[in-house]
Amino acid sequence: KSCKLHFESAPVKMVRASKQYMYDDAGTEYLDGINNVAHVGHCHPQVVHAGQQQMARLSTNFGFLTDVQGMYAKRLLETFPEPLNVCFLVNSGSEANDLALRLARAYTKKKDIICVDNAYHGNLGSLINISPCRFKKMQDFVKEDWVHVAPVPDVYRGIHRDTSNPGQKYATEVAKIITHAHANNRQIGTFISETLLAKPGIIKPPKNYFKMVYSIVRGAGGVCIADEIQTGLGRVGEHWWAFQHFDVVPDIVTCGKPMGNGHPMAAVVTSHQIADCLGDFISTYGGNPVACAIGLSVLDIIHNEKLMSAAKSVGRCLLEGFKAILPLHTTMGDVRGLGMVVGVEIVTDKESRKPSKEVAEMLSYKLKNDARMLVANDGPDKNVMTLVPPLCFTTDNAKQLVTKFDKLLKEIEDGLLGKDTSKSIDDGKISLDMISGIESDSDSDESEAKRARYDDVD
Amino acid sequence: KSCKLHFESAPVKMVRASKQYMYDDAGTEYLDGINNVAHVGHCHPQVVHAGQQQMARLSTNFGFLTDVQGMYAKRLLETFPEPLNVCFLVNSGSEANDLALRLARAYTKKKDIICVDNAYHGNLGSLINISPCRFKKMQDFVKEDWVHVAPVPDVYRGIHRDTSNPGQKYATEVAKIITHAHANNRQIGTFISETLLAKPGIIKPPKNYFKMVYSIVRGAGGVCIADEIQTGLGRVGEHWWAFQHFDVVPDIVTCGKPMGNGHPMAAVVTSHQIADCLGDFISTYGGNPVACAIGLSVLDIIHNEKLMSAAKSVGRCLLEGFKAILPLHTTMGDVRGLGMVVGVEIVTDKESRKPSKEVAEMLSYKLKNDARMLVANDGPDKNVMTLVPPLCFTTDNAKQLVTKFDKLLKEIEDGLLGKDTSKSIDDGKISLDMISGIESDSDSDESEAKRARYDDVD
Repeated sequence: KSCKLHFESAPVKMVRASKQYMYDDAGTEYLDGINNVAHVGHCHPQVVHAGQQQMARLSTNFGFLTDVQGMYAKRLLETFPEPLNVCFLVNSGSEANDLALRLARAYTKKKDIICVDNAYHGNLGSLINISPCRFKKMQDFVKEDWVHVAPVPDVYRGIHRDTSNPGQKYATEVAKIITHAHANNRQIGTFISETLLAKPGIIKPPKNYFKMVYSIVRGAGGVCIADEIQTGLGRVGEHWWAFQHFDVVPDIVTCGKPMGNGHPMAAVVTSHQIADCLGDFISTYGGNPVACAIGLSVLDIIHNEKLMSAAKSVGRCLLEGFKAILPLHTTMGDVRGLGMVVGVEIVTDKESRKPSKEVAEMLSYKLKNDARMLVANDGPDKNVMTLVPPLCFTTDNAKQLVTKFDKLLKEIEDGLLGKDTSKSIDDGKISLDMISGIESDSDSDESEAKRARYDDVD
Repeated sequence: KSCKLHFESAPVKMVRASKQYMYDDAGTEYLDGINNVAHVGHCHPQVVHAGQQQMARLSTNFGFLTDVQGMYAKRLLETFPEPLNVCFLVNSGSEANDLALRLARAYTKKKDIICVDNAYHGNLGSLINISPCRFKKMQDFVKEDWVHVAPVPDVYRGIHRDTSNPGQKYATEVAKIITHAHANNRQIGTFISETLLAKPGIIKPPKNYFKMVYSIVRGAGGVCIADEIQTGLGRVGEHWWAFQHFDVVPDIVTCGKPMGNGHPMAAVVTSHQIADCLGDFISTYGGNPVACAIGLSVLDIIHNEKLMSAAKSVGRCLLEGFKAILPLHTTMGDVRGLGMVVGVEIVTDKESRKPSKEVAEMLSYKLKNDARMLVANDGPDKNVMTLVPPLCFTTDNAKQLVTKFDKLLKEIEDGLLGKDTSKSIDDGKISLDMISGIESDSDSDESEAKRARYDDVD
């Protein structure tokens, strides 16, 4: 009863999946905009082959050396800048974040943690304490006194909006928390945040935010954890890790979902200096040979299929496509993201910016039922249409998705607000091909050059 | 640096494994007495096939219904008595224990927990707090005031030994803790223990211990968690779950390692009454189709290959074999276990019962190097030779193992204590076939009947 499903009122029973498509028990094909876990595409033959082979050969628990484990650790670490050159392999993003907190505390000897409001860091006791998106909904929950919650660095809906240098203003909020903690004889040991904040509603902080926050936290003797479970391993396109977009190097990075393309595996990456403080570490399955063989194939595929370049260009297409239809819809409040992490705010009206869970939910069901496209409505108010598709998502997929999104949202708006109060591409007044960055060929230099015409989304 | 390996001074690099054997990079075959995770045998073709097939078809994250998930939950729950008919699927034993604590607290609304001394419940922040075997070794660790540690119900080395009704005496220790907590205005919400206590040194509590403890804890408004991660799913032979040996039904059961035969999967099983208190539950990979397909094949194999019957008879052979050589060795202190969970205490001498990590470690390395047999020396003093082999371990394997154990331990004793102060089967004075329950055919009625001659090990 407590297990949550997508499309709760009519959950889908899936029987198979391939690339960016899933198939239900009636054989219906769905375009998958939800499964960030299927990083390089559902059931990628190379991943499947690697998993199948290793599974038949050796699938042991912790305690023995295996070549594949060493190779995987080396290859994974090559994607990180100095001094992040130690990794711990575990089974899930939750296990990774739990270990990251333990590393931070072992190193700083300070218990207090700053997290960001509405954040979600995993489904373990320790992590619910630092996941306001969860604990705010729990009856009788008492926030631990070692947890400090910073405001979401959200320039659309947050406390500092429509203002100059919001990055500095949000960073100052973190400084204030530290000052206040010190006044109460508490020492902040850790700042943890996703680099792009998924659960808070695909929030992309101002570009200078993390640089300032990391500097403030380190100045107070703390360390900074970047939770890259949703955003890492090439998903943002321009870099392996989203923190690189913000020109920072965290002290500890956690990564998860994309690493195993569906196989349970996750990692904590940090420096020798911090890793050496931990003491004994044991994980029965962490870094098991099957996970590592699969992880290696995922890294190979990202390279061979140029998926980071695809994430960059297709992500840009999605973003520009949504931006193009934004003026046409009274209920579209904001479009934001980076690479293949895209969020669209659905609001009752552009002026009030009041979240409309109702419209977002209708749109999500309509996209599923009428267009066979899976897009979640998420965020603290369930009004942010969230796209984190497999990286093999094409520009055609992006184009189809934006077109259907536009059409179905218009139908909803017409139904809710009276006919024809909103526009849509289908009205003929506007053509998506004309105005947006959506191209059918995402990899050519030509399309790259064309895309360069569009303003940088920052 | 913090990652622990078996045989730390000369770790083995394994490249493949099959049934109860592992093979290193030189092709050397090792008899595996360590890998409880390879429950039905390393790389069992049926498990491999199930995993390979599902991996190629659908490996999605949480949020969609799949037939295989429903089937697995149903089949797993069939192994449990009423009212344990809800299961949560997660990725690791640690995740399972963390969730079990949250369920217990959500249900009882009481934070305090009683765990058993030297216990190990997993490698997460929340679990280290209730794992004395870990936190006792950590510098600067301060035990949380909501954690209460009961003495290990160990009749060989514990505080109540060589006494009548030790079960009652150990249960009374738990009652004392509760009384003391009440006097300090604290309420005990949870009692957690492995049913056979692995890390504390393969401790098999007196038969009436859990019945009395559960009654005491429930009388005080608490719930009882059985950690069956090491001991569950048929390993004890006579029952699916070790708690059934003790005639109790826990409120919450956690299971892990054996379920996926190496694939990361685990579960929490409880009643509707308790499950309904949790609120939202999300696990990205928990209950994913690949894990469930593998889990189903493991259950099938346990049935089809009669592995519980094998665990019972081969386990009995191991136990009786070790008991037969116990009088021959000055350094063998105790032999205990149930089914395929067997522990042998190595001591400096039988009178003092002083643990000998030195001899145990030498024996472990000798078994590996001279006999190509993997047996861990574990327990709080690293002096308990611990056997938790794959369930396809045969009586011949058991016989060979006991014979080599006997021979190599004699060599160590001779070297340490001067020649020929200890006896061994090889002396010709004694024959293992004559005296022990070790038979070469474990499945026949005849061997079953023969085995019935030997005293019950309780």
